[in-house]
Amino acid sequence: MSINHEKEVTKQKLENYIKNIEPLNKKIASQMESYLDGLTKPVGSLGKLEQLVIQLAGVQETMEIKTKPCITVIMCSDNGVCDQGVSSCPQEVTATVTYNFTRGITGVNKLSQFAEADIHIVDIGVKADFNHPLINNRKIAYGTQDMTIASAMTYEQALEGIFVGIEETEKLVEAGYEVFGTGEMGIGNTTTSAAVTAALLELEVEEVTGKGAGAKDTVYNNKVNAIKKAFNIHNPLATDPIDVLAKVGGLDIAGLVGVYLGAAAHKKVVVIDGFIAAAAALVAYKLCPMVKDYMVASHLSKEVGMSRLLEAIGLEAHLNLEMRLGEGSGCPILFNLIDMAKYTLLGMGTFEEAGVDKSNYMHIWK
Amino acid sequence: MSINHEKEVTKQKLENYIKNIEPLNKKIASQMESYLDGLTKPVGSLGKLEQLVIQLAGVQETMEIKTKPCITVIMCSDNGVCDQGVSSCPQEVTATVTYNFTRGITGVNKLSQFAEADIHIVDIGVKADFNHPLINNRKIAYGTQDMTIASAMTYEQALEGIFVGIEETEKLVEAGYEVFGTGEMGIGNTTTSAAVTAALLELEVEEVTGKGAGAKDTVYNNKVNAIKKAFNIHNPLATDPIDVLAKVGGLDIAGLVGVYLGAAAHKKVVVIDGFIAAAAALVAYKLCPMVKDYMVASHLSKEVGMSRLLEAIGLEAHLNLEMRLGEGSGCPILFNLIDMAKYTLLGMGTFEEAGVDKSNYMHIWK
Repeated sequence: MSINHEKEVTKQKLENYIKNIEPLNKKIASQMESYLDGLTKPVGSLGKLEQLVIQLAGVQETMEIKTKPCITVIMCSDNGVCDQGVSSCPQEVTATVTYNFTRGITGVNKLSQFAEADIHIVDIGVKADFNHPLINNRKIAYGTQDMTIASAMTYEQALEGIFVGIEETEKLVEAGYEVFGTGEMGIGNTTTSAAVTAALLELEVEEVTGKGAGAKDTVYNNKVNAIKKAFNIHNPLATDPIDVLAKVGGLDIAGLVGVYLGAAAHKKVVVIDGFIAAAAALVAYKLCPMVKDYMVASHLSKEVGMSRLLEAIGLEAHLNLEMRLGEGSGCPILFNLIDMAKYTLLGMGTFEEAGVDKSNYMHIWK
Repeated sequence: MSINHEKEVTKQKLENYIKNIEPLNKKIASQMESYLDGLTKPVGSLGKLEQLVIQLAGVQETMEIKTKPCITVIMCSDNGVCDQGVSSCPQEVTATVTYNFTRGITGVNKLSQFAEADIHIVDIGVKADFNHPLINNRKIAYGTQDMTIASAMTYEQALEGIFVGIEETEKLVEAGYEVFGTGEMGIGNTTTSAAVTAALLELEVEEVTGKGAGAKDTVYNNKVNAIKKAFNIHNPLATDPIDVLAKVGGLDIAGLVGVYLGAAAHKKVVVIDGFIAAAAALVAYKLCPMVKDYMVASHLSKEVGMSRLLEAIGLEAHLNLEMRLGEGSGCPILFNLIDMAKYTLLGMGTFEEAGVDKSNYMHIWK
């Protein structure tokens, strides 16, 4: 009884938070679109570069859009389902790579340095203790439970995870960050993401399960079997994203759901990295469809479920780089592209400056 | 008789030039691949970013790859087929935009500035005279003939156009440029490119004809009809790319064919922009399949024929930005991505530095 009561209270807190989220400002977005239509190019011919700038104007509610500072929030946690042999990697790699983010030597570190972007490392559930100023300790548990035996998390833990993401994002908003990205580190999290995707979209497990960062056939079979077993035991409810998240998700995913919600509540654009980040994006979207206004898809990862996720949210990837690293690695690439889009479109000449008679064929170009 | 003799001589000159082109250095490419496999990430997980760095190593024959300085060669010319109403734009826009490239206000200018890349403007056949130090006068004709009436160019002009591209590229190689890109400006050139594509790949005209930078239905029909009429009159030979280029191509395309050949001959990577640049890439590839080793596709433009072209050459786009501007606008975006790939992969830690036991799962990750 008291547990159920507690659940309602906390879910109420989330519902209250979500009420703060507003759609982007369509008026300013269309003001930006009109401005871009006056530039010396066929209307819309810079495609998604134009869409990015229009989205930023609508989200930030200004024509003076800002693309910096930008930061990728990396949620790190372990997954109990690793006991089922769902990864080729020892689970300890989660802790090792989480620590290595502080050393500047990982993929997302270097990509971020190039893009002049920052990273924010959150230990939301790694099966190890850190004592490092760059690793934010928001640990909810030393990893989740094995979903083939028990619910990965309690309903409360899932909600708590979401609020960790919200709070970390709000800290960063406070610190002045303008554009956000979503990253993760957690051995076994392509399995939890496939489970969340299959449950929420009511798809066959095989349709959305891939080989992760580099799994062999046996590992692939273990993934599919683990998810099916978990579905049989827990019967996650497609109508309740938190239920799905708690039963077959992960703490990293929960944290990232909070990043999307927190960014949207504070009118900040948030870039989706790969499969895990996209699974979290779907949970956030199911909780509050308006967050889509704030989301930008970066790349189409090699994971088979990725395109189903983006399609379900109604987003399109900008890059097709066959990446499958995770870590948030797609985000700095997109930050860079957004920055390039802004520099280009707010720097180009207008039809008038270009000596091209707009009235002559502008309307034909449309 | 004398014309035929002249043709053979000049074609011989091209064939001799092509003999200088060698495949990329597979040994150094695989040396780079091995190096990347030792970095702290699942093998191959940075996908096409890794492939770019491997290609650069093979092309430049060194582990010390260079991504700068880089430059987009923009071939500008007019097309006689404009008389058939194949564009919504007045033909004068070719000259206006060519001139505007010198003013730094166009899309490709701004994108290049962001990427710290240069542009090289070549007047290979604009229907106007320029007197500007930044516009390289290599004019072969004041535009081509209307292909629905006469061959767009003579066979000799097509060859001459290719050599203009080769020579301009060689000048830039001499000046120290390491990475090349291909751009164009020429009202009507989506029509010539569709014609070249349909002729060389023996496809239906409708399969490869799109709406260009922004054409309406009537214009689209005019494009299809013009190409079909030209095919009926000239019967371009799929087996002779120069014949196709001369009869239904354009001077801009001819010049870009030369850029691909010149870059390959001097072991330089060359980035393909959009549909027109890709049509030129196909011509170059048909003349010398080895040039593929040096090519990098940038984006999948909105033109319907684009994916057929990349598929025919065996290349994949890196970006999906729904762009349809031309000008070489995809190249600086790719230059930037290549630079980011190099910075990231040559800066990342190795497994050893990362404290990850490679022997443990490196082979599983493969």
